Amino acid sequence: MPTTAPSTKRGRPGYDQQSVLLIAVDVFNRHGYDATSMGILAENLGISKSAIYHHVPSKGDLLKLALDHALGGLEAILEQPQAKTGTAEARLEFVLRETISVLVERLPYVTLLLRLRGNTEIERDAMERRRTFDHKVAALISAARDEGSLRQDIDPRTVTRLLFGTINSIVEWYKPGGSLSPEKLADDVITMAFNGLHVPR
Amino acid sequence: MPTTAPSTKRGRPGYDQQSVLLIAVDVFNRHGYDATSMGILAENLGISKSAIYHHVPSKGDLLKLALDHALGGLEAILEQPQAKTGTAEARLEFVLRETISVLVERLPYVTLLLRLRGNTEIERDAMERRRTFDHKVAALISAARDEGSLRQDIDPRTVTRLLFGTINSIVEWYKPGGSLSPEKLADDVITMAFNGLHVPR
Repeated sequence: MPTTAPSTKRGRPGYDQQSVLLIAVDVFNRHGYDATSMGILAENLGISKSAIYHHVPSKGDLLKLALDHALGGLEAILEQPQAKTGTAEARLEFVLRETISVLVERLPYVTLLLRLRGNTEIERDAMERRRTFDHKVAALISAARDEGSLRQDIDPRTVTRLLFGTINSIVEWYKPGGSLSPEKLADDVITMAFNGLHVPR
Repeated sequence: MPTTAPSTKRGRPGYDQQSVLLIAVDVFNRHGYDATSMGILAENLGISKSAIYHHVPSKGDLLKLALDHALGGLEAILEQPQAKTGTAEARLEFVLRETISVLVERLPYVTLLLRLRGNTEIERDAMERRRTFDHKVAALISAARDEGSLRQDIDPRTVTRLLFGTINSIVEWYKPGGSLSPEKLADDVITMAFNGLHVPR
């Protein structure tokens, strides 16, 4: 687990808040957040509902903690020096690589984020933070195009959609711990997106 | 609407089976198939439940018709001569272009297909047909790599996942009738995937 995951111990032996959260996120991803009751969560955790309340005040708090973990990881990328200095192309490549890395390290949390429907205030706030992140990456794509690094014949909005489509779809199939390492996956995405699948001529 | 859409008229003025289907698919996509009752469908159609049964015997039949429409479009691509003759690279490019075209023309139907959870027999059958289609495209990707057209340094399974990820994500953002035509979209996807976003050197 990444060290920045919420991990406050709140007394109950066997589970801390972080492990309750990880199981809750898994249940949300399988059943959908709306369809998951505290009863279903308790069943999956093998503890009573009141024991869950010992860790978090409500289902919404679990959702908020989970989404913060996903969004915090993404937002931190843009604060790193490599995202702020150098050519737009180099900054873009850095940000895309790190996005893939966060996505893989925090897979269930990012999956939850990407599947939000916006039915509650907590979901809408998270979607707004995600859009802000997306807009900053889109600005980097436009800058890389303006500096002459990216081809001019594709609208930068289309490039943004296709790049996010490619990267976000990773949550649907990637299996951590398999033969494809996160680093090779990031290399492959960057190679395909920037250099293309054709054999270099 | 594509001419192969189900369109048997079954008597009721105002709606035929095809327009009932299109609205039903839209409701399924917004609420999820499981969460959509015949009551919710009737409300969205502005007709009674018994009037829906006039058009189709059950909710499952609506699902089946919708999924057949998506899958029929995809499966027909592989039967065309351009998918069967020529270099693997040319066949692959043809199949990807046509896949994007079917996806855009039958957007709500393909969206429904891509979001299936596999909770019913009908869903599982459709997912199996989709897997068969995916496997045939994957074989084409391997063949294009074996003939030396595609780069060797990315595992063809990764290429398959990334290409489908890119293409399938189009349903999440593409707005038919906007400034980006389906043909330009297909050009852009093919250009990015095969030639890359870097300015040609």
